[in-house]
Parts: sequence; structure tokens; C-alpha cells
Amino acid sequence: MTEKANQGLEKPLLRVLKGECVQPRPIWLMRQAGRYLPEYRALRKQAGSFLDLCYTPELAAEITLQPIRRYGFDAAILFSDILVLPDALGQTVRFEEGIGPKLDPVTADNLAAVCRPEAVLGGGNEKLEAVYEAIRLIRRELPAETALIGFCGAPWTVATYMVEGGGSKTFERIRRWAAADSAGFAQLIDILVDTTVAHLLGQIAAGVEAVQLFESHAGVLDTVGFARWVLEPARRIVTALHAAAPDVPVIGFPRGGGVQLPRYASETGIDALGLDQSIPLDWIDGLLPKNFPVQGNLDPIYLLDGSAEIARHVEAICEALPERPHIFNLGHGVIKETDPETIQTLVECLRSL
Amino acid sequence: MTEKANQGLEKPLLRVLKGECVQPRPIWLMRQAGRYLPEYRALRKQAGSFLDLCYTPELAAEITLQPIRRYGFDAAILFSDILVLPDALGQTVRFEEGIGPKLDPVTADNLAAVCRPEAVLGGGNEKLEAVYEAIRLIRRELPAETALIGFCGAPWTVATYMVEGGGSKTFERIRRWAAADSAGFAQLIDILVDTTVAHLLGQIAAGVEAVQLFESHAGVLDTVGFARWVLEPARRIVTALHAAAPDVPVIGFPRGGGVQLPRYASETGIDALGLDQSIPLDWIDGLLPKNFPVQGNLDPIYLLDGSAEIARHVEAICEALPERPHIFNLGHGVIKETDPETIQTLVECLRSL
Repeated sequence: MTEKANQGLEKPLLRVLKGECVQPRPIWLMRQAGRYLPEYRALRKQAGSFLDLCYTPELAAEITLQPIRRYGFDAAILFSDILVLPDALGQTVRFEEGIGPKLDPVTADNLAAVCRPEAVLGGGNEKLEAVYEAIRLIRRELPAETALIGFCGAPWTVATYMVEGGGSKTFERIRRWAAADSAGFAQLIDILVDTTVAHLLGQIAAGVEAVQLFESHAGVLDTVGFARWVLEPARRIVTALHAAAPDVPVIGFPRGGGVQLPRYASETGIDALGLDQSIPLDWIDGLLPKNFPVQGNLDPIYLLDGSAEIARHVEAICEALPERPHIFNLGHGVIKETDPETIQTLVECLRSL
Repeated sequence: MTEKANQGLEKPLLRVLKGECVQPRPIWLMRQAGRYLPEYRALRKQAGSFLDLCYTPELAAEITLQPIRRYGFDAAILFSDILVLPDALGQTVRFEEGIGPKLDPVTADNLAAVCRPEAVLGGGNEKLEAVYEAIRLIRRELPAETALIGFCGAPWTVATYMVEGGGSKTFERIRRWAAADSAGFAQLIDILVDTTVAHLLGQIAAGVEAVQLFESHAGVLDTVGFARWVLEPARRIVTALHAAAPDVPVIGFPRGGGVQLPRYASETGIDALGLDQSIPLDWIDGLLPKNFPVQGNLDPIYLLDGSAEIARHVEAICEALPERPHIFNLGHGVIKETDPETIQTLVECLRSL
């Protein structure tokens, strides 16, 4: 590990994740690979379903590398999906074009039948092995200065899809289960904690140099639920990762976590905090320990129409974090209608500051 | 106004809104009138569409009073909808059973044609007059100790429906307009500010004793957008209301506003702050001025299954705000599957503390 770790420390993104201020600030974008890129859309046709893309190592690797070739981002993020985990656990997961993911919902009654942790924990899961093979292919092609980030959805967020059967506006089904039968719901969360650790360690063994935990639905719980279903699972995951892979930093991204972000940063053990666009940077900067790295948080909406205002927004974000280790990113994923040229403008703006 | 104001001061809810700690804490619930009540469902059949209910004074009044008769809440809230304003402005608004509101979207191009402020500002709008007539009917029937609350959606939130054409998960259309053409979008917000003031003053003239501004989609903007489209319109509305009706308190409810709540409380001029269930009470209690009233914030999910845990949740909320003027409420509306008996348990719990 020592040689690999030293090598890793030289990449700008990893230096920031270890607490260093690096200029120009490293940049990558959530959903930097995907539908806004014509080269992605061309390649998309070569696979039947979205999950086929994720499970075809050559395609997943190629898609991961597309934005690196185009923009020279400081990190590639594995092209995959947070729902490969429930898929690997045995739940039926379908991606419907233009609609989003559809799952046969997990309930208290069918949990044991639908969700089999041994399918992941034993190793050798065919679907996840394909993901790890993609990582090995990516590492071979990636420029020396570019870091590779792996990821999982955090247990609460993955559970929302598993229990609601897809996306949701109200999250009533899962919130109801968690509130009325917390012991039963905890079984699902426990399975997700253990298998998330296993899948992230699998990604790390295959070559990712940092991991991000996407807690995309952190904002829908009350404070009691947030502590139990967001903070505590993240703490267990980070503890296990740090024990098994102490050199690999963990970025936590509790989107919509708002007021709870300082607690999330201090109680979970994460190494860096992802910020959505609702977070006032002066507020979070005043509450985090010196040298605690953050990532974010340009509103991706500003990338949709022209580029006249981008320089101003980029400057405002950097000026609000003058002495903070900072990875430039969006507050949410690239919107599919974004013009690829505008992303080029963004990268140039940041690097010319 | 003096006699009315003195009379108003005697109602427990209004005493809290003026900064007094009252025991037992007054209680009302967002969406306390509606589909979870069998008497509502029986009455619902008497009108063709949902908006017909809102515009039939006898029905709107009866629905408003139903939960007061059943539970003796400390406030009635006018049965109406935040979309009566775009409907009164001339936009086509339909409520589709089980789907939600559908509107023919407002765009920069059709704004002047679709949205006619003079239809509201001139007075005498037939739809809004029906709302005011409902208020007069309610005041006649309301117990002497029960306050009547009027409301509007805040401009940003109402605009989300007007521009997206209904509910949304991503709010991309409105965020794009606001980001790319802020001067054009400001015309829509300006219309909503002016007509919201007019509609709230109409409600006040008819007899409401406090008003609530529902900013249900406060959480989707970046900090720049929040300042311009949430804080500033609220400030203008509150300023106008206080000038015209200084005795009528304004409750601001920026749902999902999170980190921005202290700013919302101090910069808009509101008299009380509504809290959604994500807000840690010790956090907000430490940041608001002494005697600044708050309202909230039980997660309505706890009312869905049985009532064993309700006492514990109610106690925790009250104990977290030991010396703060506090109106007990939910963090979001009553969920339609709620058993009416559970609401009874909640009210008894609170009043027996």
C-alpha cells in the first residue's frame, strides 16, 4: 500500500482530501459522465439497458474516461449507479427510459427473500465483479495526475429506492416503516451498511483512490430519524473503511442535510464534506475544523444557458473559501440539457483564477 | 381595529404570536381540514372540483370548521389553496384526483397574457370574494377562543407551480428561468408579491386574525437565489402587511430553508417562524431572539401508525423549547391516511403535559 499511497498523494485531488490547499483548485463534476455528452449517447446505444452499461466493463470504463479526455478533470468517478447494490442483493431493478428506476418494493414481509446479503458479502458476485473489472480498466488508461473516485449510495438513500420502489416526492412508505417499526427497518439498514462496506472495499481493492458516499435524500427525515438512519450508518461505514483501508479518504455528501452538516462532518468520521448548492459557504466555513476539506457547490442550473455569468459564480465560491481545502464541484449532478462547451468554460474559468 | 386587536389578544394562539409563553401550548395542524376526515370526504362529493370547494363559501367554511368541532384546536386555518391566486390571475388551474394540480405553464413569452395582476389588484375578483365570504361565515361560527388563520403561498413557491405546470422534483424549468433571465422572472415574482399582499389584506379585512406565508419549496435554491426569490419577496410582503394591518401577525414557513432560517426570521420582518421536522429545535432556539415565537415541528409520519410513541415525541419537542413562545404544529401537513383518533390522542397528550 505504501508505494500506491505515496503515488496517490501526488494527485491534486488527493492532496486536497488530505487537508492541503491546492491551486488551481481540483475540479470534477457529479454526473460528469453521461447524457449531456454526445460521445456518451453514441455509446449508450451499444447496451440494452442502463444496468448493462454498468456491468459491461469496457463500456463502463470508456464512459468513465470520456469526460477526462474532453476536460482533463482532476478526478474520474466510476460510471455506475447506487442501485447496483440492491440489484446485486437480489431485488429486481429496472431503469425505464425517461422515467427513472423502478424496483419491486422491499417490505418488512419480503425483506429476507428479496434482499440476500450473502450474495454480496461472500465475494464473487458477478455483477459487482464486472464493476471491479471496469475499475481496473480505468486505472490502466487514466492520466497519472487524475484520481479515480468510487462510490456507493448511503444506506438511507438506497433504502428509499428499495422501499418506495423508485423515486419519490414524499417518501411516505419508507418514513412510515422507519417510524412505526424501527427494529424491522434497522434490519434493512444493517444489510446495507455491511454490503456498502463490502462493495466500497471491493472498489478500493480494484483501484479507486477515494470514495464518495451519496446521501441524496438526507433532507427528508426529522432529527431523530437523521441521527439513526443517516448519521449512525455513515459512522459505521466510515469506521469500517478506515480500519480496512486507512489511506483511502471518504467524501460524505448528505444532500439536503443543511443544519445537520457540521454534525455529519464531526460524528461520522468522513474525511471531506460534499456541499449542495443550498449551503452558504461562509456558514459552513465557520463551523468546520481548519483544514477539513469541502467539495462543491455550484448550482448546475447556471451551466444551462450560456456562460456569461459562470466566471462570477466560480469566483464567488472560491472567494468564500479562501483558506479551506476545496474541491470544486457542483451542488448536484450535471443536468442532461447542459451544453458540453459550457463545461469547458467552467473548467477554464476555475483554472485561470 | 383596537377593539378587535384586544379581543384577538385574548386568544391563546394570538398571545403566543405576540411573544407570550402560553400553557398548554396552543395547537393547530397544517392540513387539519381535509381528506383524512370522514366528514370532509362526505362533503367533498357535493362539489365538482377541488377549486369549486374553495369557491363555495358555505362548503369552505364548513370544511374549515370540521376539525375545530372535532378537536377544539386553538386555530382554524381557512380551507383554501395557494393556487387560488394563479387561478384568480387568469392561469388555467386544474386539480386532478390522485395526481395533484396541473397548470398551463407560464413562460417569459406568455406571462403578460396569462397572468393579469389587475384581475386581483382592482378588488372585486369573483373567486377571491368567495374566499372572503367564507372567512366571514367562519368567523360567525368560530368559538371565541379559536383564532382564524389566513394564508398565501409565498411567491417563489406559487411560481414553481405556475412555471413547472404542477408539482416537480427537480424544479429545473423555474430555476433555469430565474438563473438565465432574472429580470424577466422578477416580473412574475413582482406580480406575485403585489397580489399576495392584496389577497392577504382581503383575507384580513374579512376577518382572519393572523396569516401564514407558505414557502414550501424554499430548499431548492442556491444562496443567491434564496436571497433574491425567497427572502426579498417575503420582506416586501411583510412590510406591506405590517403597514396596512399592524395588529395581524405573520407566520413565515420556509419549508426546507434549513440553514437560512435565522436569516429568514431576522430579515423578512415575520412575527413567527414555522419549522419543518428537519430543524433541530435546540439549534434554532439558540439562534432566534428571546421571545421570538416558533411553530412546529412534529413529523406527521408519527401520526400514521398507532399512538404509542406520540407522547414521547410531543414531550421531546416541548422540552427542547422550554422558554420559547411556541405553537404546537406538525412539520408538514397531516397525511391523508392518518386515523382521526390519533389526532385526538395528540391533542390530549399536549394538553395534559
